[in-house]
Amino acid sequence: MPENWNGQQPLVTLLSDFGDRDVYVGVMKGVIAQINSQIMVVDLTHQISPQDLAAARFSLMNAYPYFPAGTVHVAVVDPGVGSRRRAIAVQFAQGFLVGPDNGIFSGVLSQSMAMSTTGYAYAAVEITNLNFWRTPKPSKTFHGRDIFAPVAAHLASGVPLKQLGQEIDPASLVKLDIDECKQTTTGVLGCIQYIDRFGNLVSNIPRSYVEGKSWCVQAAGLNIPGCETYSNVKVGEAMALVGSHGWVEIAVNSGNAHLQLQLNLQDALHVLF
Amino acid sequence: MPENWNGQQPLVTLLSDFGDRDVYVGVMKGVIAQINSQIMVVDLTHQISPQDLAAARFSLMNAYPYFPAGTVHVAVVDPGVGSRRRAIAVQFAQGFLVGPDNGIFSGVLSQSMAMSTTGYAYAAVEITNLNFWRTPKPSKTFHGRDIFAPVAAHLASGVPLKQLGQEIDPASLVKLDIDECKQTTTGVLGCIQYIDRFGNLVSNIPRSYVEGKSWCVQAAGLNIPGCETYSNVKVGEAMALVGSHGWVEIAVNSGNAHLQLQLNLQDALHVLF
Amino acid sequence: MPENWNGQQPLVTLLSDFGDRDVYVGVMKGVIAQINSQIMVVDLTHQISPQDLAAARFSLMNAYPYFPAGTVHVAVVDPGVGSRRRAIAVQFAQGFLVGPDNGIFSGVLSQSMAMSTTGYAYAAVEITNLNFWRTPKPSKTFHGRDIFAPVAAHLASGVPLKQLGQEIDPASLVKLDIDECKQTTTGVLGCIQYIDRFGNLVSNIPRSYVEGKSWCVQAAGLNIPGCETYSNVKVGEAMALVGSHGWVEIAVNSGNAHLQLQLNLQDALHVLF
Repeated sequence: MPENWNGQQPLVTLLSDFGDRDVYVGVMKGVIAQINSQIMVVDLTHQISPQDLAAARFSLMNAYPYFPAGTVHVAVVDPGVGSRRRAIAVQFAQGFLVGPDNGIFSGVLSQSMAMSTTGYAYAAVEITNLNFWRTPKPSKTFHGRDIFAPVAAHLASGVPLKQLGQEIDPASLVKLDIDECKQTTTGVLGCIQYIDRFGNLVSNIPRSYVEGKSWCVQAAGLNIPGCETYSNVKVGEAMALVGSHGWVEIAVNSGNAHLQLQLNLQDALHVLF
Repeated sequence: MPENWNGQQPLVTLLSDFGDRDVYVGVMKGVIAQINSQIMVVDLTHQISPQDLAAARFSLMNAYPYFPAGTVHVAVVDPGVGSRRRAIAVQFAQGFLVGPDNGIFSGVLSQSMAMSTTGYAYAAVEITNLNFWRTPKPSKTFHGRDIFAPVAAHLASGVPLKQLGQEIDPASLVKLDIDECKQTTTGVLGCIQYIDRFGNLVSNIPRSYVEGKSWCVQAAGLNIPGCETYSNVKVGEAMALVGSHGWVEIAVNSGNAHLQLQLNLQDALHVLF
Repeated sequence: MPENWNGQQPLVTLLSDFGDRDVYVGVMKGVIAQINSQIMVVDLTHQISPQDLAAARFSLMNAYPYFPAGTVHVAVVDPGVGSRRRAIAVQFAQGFLVGPDNGIFSGVLSQSMAMSTTGYAYAAVEITNLNFWRTPKPSKTFHGRDIFAPVAAHLASGVPLKQLGQEIDPASLVKLDIDECKQTTTGVLGCIQYIDRFGNLVSNIPRSYVEGKSWCVQAAGLNIPGCETYSNVKVGEAMALVGSHGWVEIAVNSGNAHLQLQLNLQDALHVLF
């Protein structure tokens, strides 16, 4: 069982759609420091588009493997705040997850389970124990401040998961599934699931399909060569490669594939061998 | 008297209009670490519009209550830098304030006084003691680096306020007052004082006017129902509620009230009972 | 020799063109915390325009003097990632530099050498020792995560530079020179090398040329007075001054010189005495 409170600096990450103009994120850090001023807080991103659950899911899934065991990941993309959606905390092989039960954690959990060799099962609670909230009368619109941040600070400080509320069946957590890629007679058909700041187009086709093969991608009416790295093509030319997160990506050497190829989220791409 | 240097991690917050493209904020953190590398620094926001004193005042007022006692809040929105405006440090019930004397702290101080039950009076100094500056010849354009950051680091490390310079009359500090809301024969008339990243329109009408009552808001030619939370209306519909900062807000469920209703800063709204 | 691992909190700064939408920066912080959770990480900026080496060079050069001795500065603006460009680590008078060998450090190194009174020579290695990488098979597109962040964490934890790889001749590092300003019969001719968030136009003319003199600037067909500070002219008027980084700048009191004067990067300006 990961225990980050023994000898190691406790660590909490934050992800949200709060942006950087308002003081919402700073306030969550203040609430954490009020509980335990030794906790280190790392921002994953606060530029998730408002209420974009799919981007939150993708971002968390690609970030969690790089943090120390026992890290507490708080995610607040929460269009249902104030409704009856559950507030949850989950303990899994690499640490903890805290936030609304709306599917933003389903990528982390399915990936963590798929990669597990020990069959580790995760545990989940609905956060119902008011003792660990900032106030028993939380704001109807900002559970990040009043419930998720204080609960994360307590978890990072060593409070056991089960004290936070009623245990719930992990299988009952909301799932947010994206279409999986499909094998075809000539290759693999997938779609764009994320576009990063550089305009790189990240597909839903994992590395395993292309590893050790010679391949290319058909998309936007073009044949795009499968490469090892950006500089395998000339500046301004498109190429496909396995990106740093482990998915097939389309990129342009020193350019922006999203703008240049006019490909968007959900658009199809076909890997051919 | 709050003393964050006894046993607790010293904490400094930063708020500015410096944005995130330039290295100004990073440089202030370097200056703080040069003085005391144990200090934890939390960003409130650096996306205040250039020289927007009202937004700085609003943001500070809504953030300070969530930080540990003794926290040092540095704010650098400073159109008068290099002129004769005073550089000040203030000690108040919850901690310290450091920055230019141009009214950005007046929301914190008036709210802190209003909520005080002990009649705690705050103390203020003009920062004139060069021993606590980074250099006796500070830049004419970047007091954040040369005066405010080092003074905050010294305060967070336990230097008493009075060593920083000449005591000044707290009543002499510049005030930045916004119009207060007014009671009418049918309700309360106020205006929009802040618009957040989600397009929520925050008024200057505090919670106390509507608590326990049935109410609605007239604005932009519409009758907007007073609700408990976003999901009390359908997706795309406008509602009014008490926001997380404690003010009456107009919001749209899963939408952007600012864009949808075409309401702006200073526009009027009328709460009716 | 600076040693930040004796008694002081180890400190790493990050600069990149990664922006704030994706989790790339957060992931680098996770990798650092996996190696040493006591390291404090400070962001310089992640809003360098994609692959803008000149802006990265300028930003680093203006930030490093304000950090404690021994600080490790990681910079990842890396259009050549995955090509044969070298990954380097440098030890210089004020600390360490880690990143690609593409000229982004040449401003820091030339300035640090110019200001040295002891003739301190810096040492450089090509980062070839796989033991200090996150994995011996790094991503072809994200050396920030797999090479630079872990190497920086090890340096900040006390690993000697020479263990990281083969020593290389400091004179062999890629240089990124900008045009130097030139003396003319009537003054100094330079150009705009950086435009900050406020629209201030930073030239390549250092303070030493104008100190103690009466001067003005010709640019954009205008005569702009040399001043001490913003408030020496009326609101909305242009002035020139020595900015906080030590270069002649053109600014507008409470305005945006870039937009108002329509001056851009590389445009000429002439300081006249």
